[in-house]
Amino acid sequence: MSNPCIICVAITGSVPSKADNPAVPITVAEQIESTHEAFEAGASIAHCHVRDDNGTPTSDPDRFAALKEGIEAHCPGMIVQLSTGGRSGTGRDRGGMLPLSPDMASLSVGSNNFPTRVYENSPDLVDWLASEMITHDVKPEIEAFDLSHIVQATRMAADGRLKGPLYVQFVMGVKNAMPADEPIFDFYIETLKRLAPDAQWCAAGIGQAQLTVNEWSISKGGHTRA
Amino acid sequence: MSNPCIICVAITGSVPSKADNPAVPITVAEQIESTHEAFEAGASIAHCHVRDDNGTPTSDPDRFAALKEGIEAHCPGMIVQLSTGGRSGTGRDRGGMLPLSPDMASLSVGSNNFPTRVYENSPDLVDWLASEMITHDVKPEIEAFDLSHIVQATRMAADGRLKGPLYVQFVMGVKNAMPADEPIFDFYIETLKRLAPDAQWCAAGIGQAQLTVNEWSISKGGHTRA
Ligand SMILES: [Zn+2]
Ligand SMILES: [Zn+2]
Ligand SMILES: [Zn+2]
Ligand SMILES: [Zn+2]
Repeated sequence: MSNPCIICVAITGSVPSKADNPAVPITVAEQIESTHEAFEAGASIAHCHVRDDNGTPTSDPDRFAALKEGIEAHCPGMIVQLSTGGRSGTGRDRGGMLPLSPDMASLSVGSNNFPTRVYENSPDLVDWLASEMITHDVKPEIEAFDLSHIVQATRMAADGRLKGPLYVQFVMGVKNAMPADEPIFDFYIETLKRLAPDAQWCAAGIGQAQLTVNEWSISKGGHTRA
Repeated sequence: MSNPCIICVAITGSVPSKADNPAVPITVAEQIESTHEAFEAGASIAHCHVRDDNGTPTSDPDRFAALKEGIEAHCPGMIVQLSTGGRSGTGRDRGGMLPLSPDMASLSVGSNNFPTRVYENSPDLVDWLASEMITHDVKPEIEAFDLSHIVQATRMAADGRLKGPLYVQFVMGVKNAMPADEPIFDFYIETLKRLAPDAQWCAAGIGQAQLTVNEWSISKGGHTRA
Protein backbone atom coordinates (compact mmCIF):
# COMPACT_ATOMS: atom_id res chain seq x y z
CA MET A 1 0.00 0.00 0.00
CA SER A 2 1.33 3.42 -0.87
CA ASN A 3 -1.02 5.25 1.50
CA PRO A 4 -0.07 5.07 5.17
CA CYS A 5 -2.17 2.80 7.33
CA ILE A 6 -4.82 4.72 9.20
CA ILE A 7 -5.85 3.32 12.53
CA CYS A 8 -9.29 4.43 13.61
CA VAL A 9 -10.29 4.14 17.24
CA ALA A 10 -13.92 4.02 18.35
CA ILE A 11 -13.71 5.69 21.72
CA THR A 12 -17.13 4.86 23.08
CA GLY A 13 -19.48 2.82 20.95
CA SER A 14 -23.12 3.70 21.30
CA VAL A 15 -24.04 0.42 22.95
CA PRO A 16 -21.95 -0.18 26.09
CA SER A 17 -22.84 1.45 29.37
CA LYS A 18 -21.02 1.73 32.68
CA ALA A 19 -23.25 -1.07 33.96
CA ASP A 20 -21.84 -3.43 31.30
CA ASN A 21 -18.23 -2.47 31.81
CA PRO A 22 -17.08 0.09 34.37
CA ALA A 23 -13.89 0.69 32.32
CA VAL A 24 -15.79 2.09 29.33
CA PRO A 25 -15.10 5.82 29.11
CA ILE A 26 -18.41 7.69 29.23
CA THR A 27 -17.82 11.24 30.40
CA VAL A 28 -16.15 13.63 28.01
CA ALA A 29 -13.11 13.82 30.33
CA GLU A 30 -12.79 10.04 30.33
CA GLN A 31 -13.20 9.94 26.57
CA ILE A 32 -10.47 12.50 26.03
CA GLU A 33 -8.14 10.56 28.34
CA SER A 34 -8.76 7.28 26.54
CA THR A 35 -8.49 8.88 23.09
CA HIS A 36 -5.17 10.34 24.13
CA GLU A 37 -3.87 6.88 25.05
CA ALA A 38 -4.98 5.51 21.68
CA PHE A 39 -3.40 8.52 19.93
CA GLU A 40 -0.07 7.87 21.64
CA ALA A 41 -0.36 4.22 20.59
CA GLY A 42 -0.73 5.31 16.96
CA ALA A 43 -4.42 5.81 16.25
CA SER A 44 -5.03 8.61 13.78
CA ILE A 45 -8.86 8.85 13.65
CA ALA A 46 -11.14 9.12 16.68
CA HIS A 47 -14.68 7.94 15.90
CA CYS A 48 -16.80 9.62 18.55
CA HIS A 49 -20.16 9.08 20.21
CA VAL A 50 -21.32 11.09 23.24
CA ARG A 51 -23.56 10.43 26.25
CA ASP A 52 -25.75 12.59 28.41
CA ASP A 53 -25.38 12.78 32.21
CA ASN A 54 -27.34 9.54 32.59
CA GLY A 55 -25.02 7.70 30.23
CA THR A 56 -27.64 7.58 27.45
CA PRO A 57 -26.40 8.10 23.86
CA THR A 58 -27.21 11.58 22.59
CA SER A 59 -26.54 13.78 19.57
CA ASP A 60 -26.23 16.90 21.73
CA PRO A 61 -24.00 19.33 19.80
CA ASP A 62 -22.61 20.83 23.01
CA ARG A 63 -21.32 17.47 24.17
CA PHE A 64 -19.79 16.85 20.77
CA ALA A 65 -18.21 20.31 20.84
CA ALA A 66 -16.57 19.66 24.22
CA LEU A 67 -15.22 16.29 23.10
CA LYS A 68 -13.94 17.71 19.82
CA GLU A 69 -12.17 20.58 21.57
CA GLY A 70 -10.61 18.23 24.10
CA ILE A 71 -9.28 15.87 21.45
CA GLU A 72 -7.94 18.74 19.37
CA ALA A 73 -6.13 20.14 22.42
CA HIS A 74 -4.69 16.83 23.67
CA CYS A 75 -4.13 14.94 20.41
CA PRO A 76 -2.80 17.46 17.88
CA GLY A 77 -3.31 16.28 14.31
CA MET A 78 -5.72 13.51 15.22
CA ILE A 79 -8.73 13.32 12.87
CA VAL A 80 -12.00 13.85 14.74
CA GLN A 81 -14.93 11.89 13.34
CA LEU A 82 -18.35 12.47 14.92
CA SER A 83 -21.11 9.90 14.66
CA THR A 84 -24.41 10.77 12.98
CA GLY A 85 -25.59 7.19 13.64
CA GLY A 86 -29.15 6.40 14.55
CA ARG A 87 -28.58 5.09 18.05
CA SER A 88 -28.03 8.53 19.50
CA GLY A 89 -30.95 10.45 18.05
CA THR A 90 -33.64 10.50 15.41
CA GLY A 91 -34.24 12.52 12.27
CA ARG A 92 -32.27 15.69 11.73
CA ASP A 93 -31.10 15.76 15.34
CA ARG A 94 -28.59 13.19 14.17
CA GLY A 95 -26.81 15.88 12.16
CA GLY A 96 -27.05 18.69 14.73
CA MET A 97 -23.29 18.60 15.37
CA LEU A 98 -22.26 19.03 11.73
CA PRO A 99 -22.06 22.85 11.99
CA LEU A 100 -19.07 22.21 14.30
CA SER A 101 -17.23 21.26 11.09
CA PRO A 102 -15.43 18.21 12.46
CA ASP A 103 -12.85 16.70 10.11
CA MET A 104 -15.17 13.76 9.46
CA ALA A 105 -18.58 12.37 10.35
CA SER A 106 -20.09 8.96 9.83
CA LEU A 107 -22.89 8.67 7.28
CA SER A 108 -25.24 5.78 6.58
CA VAL A 109 -26.69 5.91 3.07
CA GLY A 110 -29.19 3.05 3.30
CA SER A 111 -31.34 1.13 5.75
CA ASN A 112 -30.91 -2.37 7.16
CA ASN A 113 -31.87 -4.55 10.08
CA PHE A 114 -30.10 -4.42 13.42
CA PRO A 115 -30.35 -7.13 16.09
CA THR A 116 -33.78 -6.09 17.34
CA ARG A 117 -34.98 -3.28 15.06
CA VAL A 118 -34.79 -1.55 11.72
CA TYR A 119 -31.88 0.87 11.34
CA GLU A 120 -33.76 3.62 9.52
CA ASN A 121 -31.96 6.02 7.21
CA SER A 122 -34.64 7.38 4.94
CA PRO A 123 -33.61 8.75 1.53
CA ASP A 124 -34.57 12.29 2.61
CA LEU A 125 -32.52 12.14 5.80
CA VAL A 126 -29.51 10.68 3.98
CA ASP A 127 -29.61 13.45 1.38
CA TRP A 128 -29.97 16.11 4.06
CA LEU A 129 -27.04 14.78 6.14
CA ALA A 130 -24.92 14.58 2.98
CA SER A 131 -25.76 18.17 2.04
CA GLU A 132 -24.94 19.37 5.56
CA MET A 133 -21.56 17.69 5.27
CA ILE A 134 -20.86 19.54 2.04
CA THR A 135 -22.04 22.84 3.57
CA HIS A 136 -19.82 22.46 6.63
CA ASP A 137 -16.87 20.87 4.82
CA VAL A 138 -17.08 17.58 6.71
CA LYS A 139 -15.67 14.45 5.08
CA PRO A 140 -18.09 11.55 5.43
CA GLU A 141 -17.10 8.04 6.41
CA ILE A 142 -19.76 5.96 4.70
CA GLU A 143 -20.97 3.16 6.98
CA ALA A 144 -21.72 0.23 4.68
CA PHE A 145 -23.83 -2.39 6.42
CA ASP A 146 -24.75 -4.02 3.11
CA LEU A 147 -23.62 -4.13 -0.50
CA SER A 148 -26.19 -1.66 -1.84
CA HIS A 149 -24.85 0.96 0.58
CA ILE A 150 -21.51 0.84 -1.23
CA VAL A 151 -23.24 1.21 -4.59
CA GLN A 152 -25.43 4.03 -3.31
CA ALA A 153 -22.39 5.94 -2.03
CA THR A 154 -20.75 5.72 -5.46
CA ARG A 155 -23.94 7.02 -7.10
CA MET A 156 -24.09 9.91 -4.63
CA ALA A 157 -20.46 10.77 -5.39
CA ALA A 158 -21.15 10.61 -9.13
CA ASP A 159 -24.12 12.99 -8.97
CA GLY A 160 -22.50 15.42 -6.54
CA ARG A 161 -24.42 14.63 -3.37
CA LEU A 162 -21.14 13.47 -1.85
CA LYS A 163 -17.72 14.99 -2.43
CA GLY A 164 -15.14 12.44 -3.52
CA PRO A 165 -12.89 10.64 -3.05
CA LEU A 166 -15.11 8.34 -0.99
CA TYR A 167 -14.03 6.89 2.31
CA VAL A 168 -16.12 3.80 3.07
CA GLN A 169 -16.21 1.62 6.14
CA PHE A 170 -17.44 -1.96 5.74
CA VAL A 171 -19.31 -3.01 8.87
CA MET A 172 -19.65 -6.73 9.52
CA GLY A 173 -20.84 -8.86 12.40
CA VAL A 174 -24.08 -7.06 13.25
CA LYS A 175 -26.84 -9.62 13.84
CA ASN A 176 -29.52 -9.53 11.11
CA ALA A 177 -27.26 -7.39 8.89
CA MET A 178 -24.05 -8.66 7.23
CA PRO A 179 -21.95 -11.25 9.06
CA ALA A 180 -18.16 -11.43 8.76
CA ASP A 181 -17.77 -13.38 5.51
CA GLU A 182 -14.49 -13.27 3.61
CA PRO A 183 -15.75 -13.75 0.02
CA ILE A 184 -18.24 -10.95 0.65
CA PHE A 185 -15.51 -8.78 2.17
CA ASP A 186 -13.41 -9.33 -0.97
CA PHE A 187 -16.40 -8.51 -3.17
CA TYR A 188 -17.00 -5.30 -1.21
CA ILE A 189 -13.45 -4.18 -2.05
CA GLU A 190 -13.80 -5.26 -5.68
CA THR A 191 -17.13 -3.47 -6.12
CA LEU A 192 -15.93 -0.27 -4.49
CA LYS A 193 -12.81 -0.21 -6.67
CA ARG A 194 -14.86 -0.93 -9.80
CA LEU A 195 -17.43 1.82 -9.16
CA ALA A 196 -15.17 4.42 -7.51
CA PRO A 197 -11.50 3.70 -8.33
CA ASP A 198 -10.20 6.52 -6.14
CA ALA A 199 -12.11 5.45 -3.03
CA GLN A 200 -10.45 4.36 0.19
CA TRP A 201 -11.94 1.91 2.67
CA CYS A 202 -11.68 0.67 6.20
CA ALA A 203 -13.56 -2.07 8.02
CA ALA A 204 -15.06 -2.70 11.43
CA GLY A 205 -16.05 -6.06 12.87
CA ILE A 206 -18.61 -5.85 15.63
CA GLY A 207 -18.33 -8.05 18.74
CA GLN A 208 -16.75 -11.42 18.01
CA ALA A 209 -16.03 -10.41 14.42
CA GLN A 210 -13.62 -7.65 15.46
CA LEU A 211 -10.28 -9.45 15.29
CA THR A 212 -11.16 -11.37 12.12
CA VAL A 213 -12.24 -8.24 10.28
CA ASN A 214 -9.17 -6.33 11.48
CA GLU A 215 -6.93 -9.08 10.09
CA TRP A 216 -8.71 -9.06 6.73
CA SER A 217 -8.54 -5.29 6.62
CA ILE A 218 -4.79 -5.14 7.29
CA SER A 219 -3.93 -7.98 4.91
CA LYS A 220 -6.09 -6.60 2.09
CA GLY A 221 -4.87 -3.02 2.29
CA GLY A 222 -7.59 -1.23 4.21
CA HIS A 223 -7.53 0.94 7.27
CA THR A 224 -8.56 -0.55 10.58
CA ARG A 225 -10.75 0.42 13.47
CA ALA A 226 -9.36 -0.78 16.81
CA MET B 1 -30.50 -26.51 -16.43
CA SER B 2 -32.19 -29.76 -15.46
CA ASN B 3 -35.14 -28.05 -13.77
CA PRO B 4 -37.82 -26.68 -16.09
CA CYS B 5 -37.91 -22.96 -16.52
CA ILE B 6 -40.49 -21.35 -14.28
CA ILE B 7 -42.07 -18.18 -15.56
CA CYS B 8 -43.52 -16.05 -12.84
CA VAL B 9 -46.05 -13.37 -13.70
CA ALA B 10 -46.72 -10.40 -11.46
CA ILE B 11 -50.37 -9.74 -12.18
CA THR B 12 -50.76 -6.36 -10.55
CA GLY B 13 -47.78 -4.77 -8.91
CA SER B 14 -48.52 -2.73 -5.86
CA VAL B 15 -47.61 0.56 -7.47
CA PRO B 16 -49.63 1.16 -10.67
CA SER B 17 -53.15 2.49 -10.51
CA LYS B 18 -55.86 2.85 -13.13
CA ALA B 19 -54.96 6.51 -13.34
CA ASP B 20 -51.43 5.60 -14.49
CA ASN B 21 -52.51 2.98 -16.97
CA PRO B 22 -56.15 2.07 -17.64
CA ALA B 23 -55.06 -1.37 -18.92
CA VAL B 24 -53.67 -2.49 -15.54
CA PRO B 25 -55.98 -5.14 -14.10
CA ILE B 26 -57.23 -4.00 -10.70
CA THR B 27 -60.44 -5.78 -9.83
CA VAL B 28 -60.25 -9.44 -8.91
CA ALA B 29 -62.21 -10.35 -12.08
CA GLU B 30 -59.73 -8.41 -14.23
CA GLN B 31 -56.82 -10.00 -12.42
CA ILE B 32 -58.15 -13.52 -12.98
CA GLU B 33 -58.67 -12.75 -16.68
CA SER B 34 -55.17 -11.41 -17.13
CA THR B 35 -53.61 -14.25 -15.10
CA HIS B 36 -55.43 -16.70 -17.33
CA GLU B 37 -53.90 -15.14 -20.42
CA ALA B 38 -50.42 -15.36 -18.89
CA PHE B 39 -51.10 -18.97 -17.86
CA GLU B 40 -52.05 -19.91 -21.41
CA ALA B 41 -48.88 -18.18 -22.58
CA GLY B 42 -46.83 -20.41 -20.29
CA ALA B 43 -46.54 -18.65 -16.93
CA SER B 44 -46.49 -21.09 -14.02
CA ILE B 45 -46.45 -18.83 -10.96
CA ALA B 46 -48.86 -15.93 -10.33
CA HIS B 47 -47.40 -13.36 -7.93
CA CYS B 48 -50.48 -11.58 -6.54
CA HIS B 49 -51.29 -8.25 -4.96
CA VAL B 50 -54.87 -7.08 -4.30
CA ARG B 51 -56.65 -3.71 -4.17
CA ASP B 52 -59.67 -2.43 -2.31
CA ASP B 53 -62.67 -0.84 -4.06
CA ASN B 54 -60.79 2.45 -4.35
CA GLY B 55 -57.84 0.80 -6.05
CA THR B 56 -55.62 1.14 -2.99
CA PRO B 57 -53.26 -1.77 -2.20
CA THR B 58 -54.56 -3.87 0.70
CA SER B 59 -53.71 -7.08 2.53
CA ASP B 60 -57.42 -7.95 2.99
CA PRO B 61 -57.58 -11.77 3.31
CA ASP B 62 -61.04 -11.88 1.67
CA ARG B 63 -59.73 -10.22 -1.47
CA PHE B 64 -56.80 -12.60 -1.56
CA ALA B 65 -59.16 -15.55 -1.05
CA ALA B 66 -61.33 -14.53 -4.02
CA LEU B 67 -58.30 -14.07 -6.26
CA LYS B 68 -56.78 -17.38 -5.17
CA GLU B 69 -60.03 -19.26 -5.81
CA GLY B 70 -60.44 -17.66 -9.22
CA ILE B 71 -56.91 -18.53 -10.31
CA GLU B 72 -57.25 -22.08 -9.04
CA ALA B 73 -60.51 -22.49 -10.97
CA HIS B 74 -59.34 -20.91 -14.23
CA CYS B 75 -55.64 -21.87 -14.28
CA PRO B 76 -55.41 -25.45 -12.98
CA GLY B 77 -51.93 -26.29 -11.74
CA MET B 78 -50.75 -22.69 -11.64
CA ILE B 79 -48.80 -21.82 -8.49
CA VAL B 80 -50.46 -19.04 -6.50
CA GLN B 81 -48.06 -16.74 -4.69
CA LEU B 82 -49.55 -14.05 -2.44
CA SER B 83 -47.60 -10.93 -1.53
CA THR B 84 -46.82 -10.14 2.11
CA GLY B 85 -44.97 -7.02 0.93
CA GLY B 86 -45.06 -3.81 2.87
CA ARG B 87 -46.85 -1.64 0.34
CA SER B 88 -50.23 -3.21 1.05
CA GLY B 89 -50.31 -3.14 4.83
CA THR B 90 -48.27 -2.75 7.98
CA GLY B 91 -47.19 -5.11 10.75
CA ARG B 92 -48.90 -8.45 11.07
CA ASP B 93 -51.71 -7.40 8.73
CA ARG B 94 -49.20 -8.18 6.01
CA GLY B 95 -49.49 -11.89 6.84
CA GLY B 96 -53.24 -12.01 7.38
CA MET B 97 -53.78 -14.08 4.20
CA LEU B 98 -51.31 -16.83 5.13
CA PRO B 99 -54.00 -18.99 6.81
CA LEU B 100 -55.42 -19.39 3.26
CA SER B 101 -52.41 -21.68 2.71
CA PRO B 102 -51.50 -20.43 -0.76
CA ASP B 103 -48.80 -22.44 -2.52
CA MET B 104 -46.33 -19.62 -1.96
CA ALA B 105 -46.01 -16.17 -0.43
CA SER B 106 -43.35 -13.52 -0.80
CA LEU B 107 -41.17 -12.83 2.23
CA SER B 108 -38.69 -10.02 2.84
CA VAL B 109 -36.08 -10.93 5.46
CA GLY B 110 -34.34 -7.58 5.80
CA SER B 111 -34.89 -3.85 5.45
CA ASN B 112 -33.69 -1.44 2.78
CA ASN B 113 -34.46 1.89 1.21
CA PHE B 114 -37.12 2.36 -1.45
CA PRO B 115 -37.37 5.44 -3.73
CA THR B 116 -38.94 7.69 -1.09
CA ARG B 117 -38.99 5.73 2.15
CA VAL B 118 -37.58 2.94 4.27
CA TYR B 119 -38.94 -0.51 3.44
CA GLU B 120 -39.31 -1.77 7.01
CA ASN B 121 -39.16 -5.46 7.80
CA SER B 122 -38.27 -5.63 11.46
CA PRO B 123 -36.60 -8.80 12.76
CA ASP B 124 -39.70 -9.64 14.83
CA LEU B 125 -42.07 -9.28 11.88
CA VAL B 126 -39.81 -11.34 9.61
CA ASP B 127 -39.65 -14.16 12.15
CA TRP B 128 -43.42 -14.07 12.67
CA LEU B 129 -44.19 -14.18 8.93
CA ALA B 130 -41.73 -17.05 8.51
CA SER B 131 -43.33 -18.99 11.35
CA GLU B 132 -46.82 -18.42 9.88
CA MET B 133 -45.57 -19.82 6.57
CA ILE B 134 -44.34 -22.95 8.32
CA THR B 135 -47.62 -23.28 10.24
CA HIS B 136 -49.76 -22.95 7.11
CA ASP B 137 -47.42 -24.88 4.82
CA VAL B 138 -46.70 -21.93 2.53
CA LYS B 139 -43.45 -21.90 0.57
CA PRO B 140 -41.77 -18.51 0.81
CA GLU B 141 -40.24 -16.68 -2.13
CA ILE B 142 -37.50 -14.65 -0.46
CA GLU B 143 -37.40 -11.12 -1.89
CA ALA B 144 -33.72 -10.14 -1.86
CA PHE B 145 -33.28 -6.40 -2.30
CA ASP B 146 -29.69 -6.57 -1.06
CA LEU B 147 -26.91 -9.08 -0.49
CA SER B 148 -27.45 -9.47 3.26
CA HIS B 149 -31.01 -10.60 2.58
CA ILE B 150 -29.65 -13.64 0.72
CA VAL B 151 -27.29 -14.40 3.59
CA GLN B 152 -30.06 -13.93 6.16
CA ALA B 153 -32.34 -16.35 4.28
CA THR B 154 -29.65 -19.03 4.34
CA ARG B 155 -29.19 -18.50 8.09
CA MET B 156 -32.93 -18.80 8.66
CA ALA B 157 -33.00 -22.03 6.64
CA ALA B 158 -30.04 -23.39 8.62
CA ASP B 159 -31.64 -22.72 12.01
CA GLY B 160 -35.12 -23.93 11.03
CA ARG B 161 -36.95 -20.61 10.77
CA LEU B 162 -37.43 -21.33 7.06
CA LYS B 163 -38.05 -24.71 5.49
CA GLY B 164 -35.63 -25.51 2.67
CA PRO B 165 -34.86 -25.69 -0.13
CA LEU B 166 -34.88 -21.91 -0.44
CA TYR B 167 -36.47 -20.11 -3.36
CA VAL B 168 -34.97 -16.62 -3.64
CA GLN B 169 -35.88 -13.76 -5.94
CA PHE B 170 -33.19 -11.14 -6.65
CA VAL B 171 -34.86 -7.75 -7.05
CA MET B 172 -32.90 -5.10 -8.93
CA GLY B 173 -33.68 -1.68 -10.31
CA VAL B 174 -35.41 -0.15 -7.28
CA LYS B 175 -34.13 3.39 -6.73
CA ASN B 176 -32.06 3.71 -3.53
CA ALA B 177 -31.83 -0.09 -3.24
CA MET B 178 -29.81 -2.30 -5.63
CA PRO B 179 -29.56 -1.27 -9.29
CA ALA B 180 -29.31 -3.80 -12.14
CA ASP B 181 -25.58 -4.61 -12.07
CA GLU B 182 -24.29 -7.77 -13.73
CA PRO B 183 -21.23 -8.49 -11.54
CA ILE B 184 -23.48 -8.13 -8.50
CA PHE B 185 -26.10 -10.36 -10.09
CA ASP B 186 -23.42 -13.02 -10.66
CA PHE B 187 -22.21 -12.65 -7.08
CA TYR B 188 -25.78 -13.08 -5.80
CA ILE B 189 -25.95 -16.45 -7.59
CA GLU B 190 -22.48 -17.46 -6.39
CA THR B 191 -23.24 -16.53 -2.78
CA LEU B 192 -26.59 -18.29 -2.73
CA LYS B 193 -25.05 -21.47 -4.17
CA ARG B 194 -22.17 -21.31 -1.69
CA LEU B 195 -24.36 -20.86 1.38
CA ALA B 196 -27.37 -22.97 0.29
CA PRO B 197 -26.36 -25.35 -2.52
CA ASP B 198 -29.91 -26.70 -2.98
CA ALA B 199 -31.52 -23.26 -3.33
CA GLN B 200 -33.30 -22.07 -6.47
CA TRP B 201 -33.53 -18.48 -7.60
CA CYS B 202 -35.40 -16.15 -9.89
CA ALA B 203 -34.96 -12.46 -10.58
CA ALA B 204 -37.08 -9.40 -11.16
CA GLY B 205 -35.98 -6.14 -12.72
CA ILE B 206 -38.13 -3.18 -11.79
CA GLY B 207 -39.05 -0.56 -14.38
CA GLN B 208 -36.36 -0.03 -16.99
CA ALA B 209 -34.31 -2.90 -15.55
CA GLN B 210 -36.95 -5.49 -16.41
CA LEU B 211 -35.73 -6.74 -19.78
CA THR B 212 -32.06 -6.70 -18.79
CA VAL B 213 -32.67 -8.69 -15.63
CA ASN B 214 -34.90 -11.17 -17.49
CA GLU B 215 -32.11 -11.78 -20.00
CA TRP B 216 -29.52 -12.33 -17.26
CA SER B 217 -31.91 -14.62 -15.44
CA ILE B 218 -32.61 -16.81 -18.47
CA SER B 219 -28.98 -16.98 -19.60
CA LYS B 220 -27.68 -17.78 -16.10
CA GLY B 221 -30.21 -20.50 -15.29
CA GLY B 222 -32.76 -18.76 -13.10
CA HIS B 223 -36.48 -18.46 -13.33
CA THR B 224 -37.98 -15.27 -14.65
CA ARG B 225 -40.73 -12.92 -13.68
CA ALA B 226 -42.53 -11.49 -16.71
ZN1 LIG C 1 -12.63 3.92 10.17
ZN1 LIG D 1 -20.28 4.72 15.68
ZN1 LIG E 1 -40.52 -15.39 -9.15
ZN1 LIG F 1 -45.01 -8.02 -5.19
